[in-house]
Amino acid sequence: MTVRAGLVGVGPVGDRIAMCVRERNFPLSEPLRVMATSARTEILGGEQVQVQATRAELFEGLDVVFFAGREGAKGASVQWAPTAIECGAYCIDNGSDFRLDPNVPLVVPEINMEEVTEETRLIASPNCSTIQLVVALAPLNQAAGIKRVVVSTYQSVSGWGQAAVEEMERQLPACLRGEPVECDPSIFARPIMLDCLPHIDRFLEDGYTKEEMKIVHETRKILDEPDMPITATAVRVPIPLGHSESVNLEFEQPITRDEATEILDQAPGVVVMDGPTEDPAAVEYRNDPNELQYPTTADLYKDEYKDMVLVGRIRQDNTIENGLNMWIVADNLRKGAATNVVQIAEGMLERGIIG
Amino acid sequence: MTVRAGLVGVGPVGDRIAMCVRERNFPLSEPLRVMATSARTEILGGEQVQVQATRAELFEGLDVVFFAGREGAKGASVQWAPTAIECGAYCIDNGSDFRLDPNVPLVVPEINMEEVTEETRLIASPNCSTIQLVVALAPLNQAAGIKRVVVSTYQSVSGWGQAAVEEMERQLPACLRGEPVECDPSIFARPIMLDCLPHIDRFLEDGYTKEEMKIVHETRKILDEPDMPITATAVRVPIPLGHSESVNLEFEQPITRDEATEILDQAPGVVVMDGPTEDPAAVEYRNDPNELQYPTTADLYKDEYKDMVLVGRIRQDNTIENGLNMWIVADNLRKGAATNVVQIAEGMLERGIIG
Repeated sequence: MTVRAGLVGVGPVGDRIAMCVRERNFPLSEPLRVMATSARTEILGGEQVQVQATRAELFEGLDVVFFAGREGAKGASVQWAPTAIECGAYCIDNGSDFRLDPNVPLVVPEINMEEVTEETRLIASPNCSTIQLVVALAPLNQAAGIKRVVVSTYQSVSGWGQAAVEEMERQLPACLRGEPVECDPSIFARPIMLDCLPHIDRFLEDGYTKEEMKIVHETRKILDEPDMPITATAVRVPIPLGHSESVNLEFEQPITRDEATEILDQAPGVVVMDGPTEDPAAVEYRNDPNELQYPTTADLYKDEYKDMVLVGRIRQDNTIENGLNMWIVADNLRKGAATNVVQIAEGMLERGIIG
Repeated sequence: MTVRAGLVGVGPVGDRIAMCVRERNFPLSEPLRVMATSARTEILGGEQVQVQATRAELFEGLDVVFFAGREGAKGASVQWAPTAIECGAYCIDNGSDFRLDPNVPLVVPEINMEEVTEETRLIASPNCSTIQLVVALAPLNQAAGIKRVVVSTYQSVSGWGQAAVEEMERQLPACLRGEPVECDPSIFARPIMLDCLPHIDRFLEDGYTKEEMKIVHETRKILDEPDMPITATAVRVPIPLGHSESVNLEFEQPITRDEATEILDQAPGVVVMDGPTEDPAAVEYRNDPNELQYPTTADLYKDEYKDMVLVGRIRQDNTIENGLNMWIVADNLRKGAATNVVQIAEGMLERGIIG
């Protein structure tokens, strides 16, 4: 059972897709066929790879194509998925163009892999800030029925793309010397070092950003709750990798902090990092008998957590009848993008749709 | 009408108090009498100052004393305010020891200066994250009655103290070189460069931190709404100065985005930075016809904003009947501490309580 796979796009997400395919031993029958807007050699997933300029013939014979690139103003899938499908490939799209298309399933394998059938030629993978949210929300929604979600995000610069990471690195030395920081306004409206910018993607007429509304609409679609009340504030923070989310939840049914912890502990793709710290020195250092462990983006550099959604700071919110607060952390390039895309392909392999 | 004033404490807040007293031309009849745990020379408010070791005689003849220091595990006011009061001085305390004492008013001059009378010998100033929140909340509460508050904070390291700013500066070069960052666990539990830590002050048994509960209890006391439902998540971000807050509000009465903007625009101490950007290039750069302005901590370095509470990203939240989201930014050392303390003294001067 092997698969011929293609990849369109060689940015940070394309890099992580190549990495995930190798690390997870995705059963390729031939090397990943890598395409981008122009032919070149790239280091992808830590290996030197020959990149070919995307053209129709390159999709021939492929079983599955991962889309993680752009063609002009749109995702590469807009131009190339029809060709890939015509060639007989299944397309898994990391881009945003088809996510809300009612004919395209928006898939997080832990939640709704069953929406993918042999007839599904195009599958969309959600936005990074959505994926980590729904992986934690789905099991809680099943247990107690979510009535309302209020989320504030702490999103790293890598979500913008490689140029943003470089922009941050470029700004760091001036920051360090206390000098004015130069800013490329085509990336962020203001210097991101060292500031928090409540501005991700474009503004809509009602004052929300597209990023904020992606969280709303994509979460509803994945959870199959078209009217779930969700409100979001999306904020860019000066962090290279990993998104965090402060989430306030209201439920239909009673749910305690311990019950939620237990449910999340059993949930696929979730690691709960809450409860007493395992480091007794931490209690002593901070003279705090209640010292807790909690996840942060630093945990995402550990092998056991890099593809997981980490949840901590689970607290009862007594301002409403059935309320909880929590803190959700994940790698925006891996589980928030590449890992999810590769997991969709793995799910299709398991179901005999490909391979 | 002049005042003899003392200052106990020479950390970042003491420094800013000395600065505010000078910048705001607070009418001193003799130089600020500065005390700390030991005698020394310090640069305070940009000027070299002789610091004396705190002792009872130094409070003699003072009209007002600003407390912004520690004595052992508690604020210096615990040990020295009784002496200062005995000497006839009014005490204004930046520390947390008396904030929730029912006999001590907790004052933000824009909101409840009338609680200070000739009989009030000790006045508490709230926590930084509370002050900026209530300055924006008070006028909205008056207009439409706040039913519930959900707040997530983005708090700079300077709130911890000068050592935290130095810790961050120490960690920056290693960050820049991509090397592991060393961490003094007595300051932050984990390296703050470059991460977000959902952990400010000690944990309580229910999983909330003391910082989160300060926001809850202090806001209720200042707004004189002892049962107002407020839930908070307090997060430390790798920023040197300035706190931001993502705030979700539910109101008793209908209130539109435009009405809230208008009310905040008229409110004392508030600057609304919302609506169309004044930089037409920004619209073009980001190809966004709806491009908005919004405040960030970078604005706090400007003279006209350094003592103000900046509000932006005001949006209708349609997930509830009368809902709004907003983004609130202030300098945690100035309006969040020193400025508020000096403004209280100014208010007492105006009312003829001192001077």
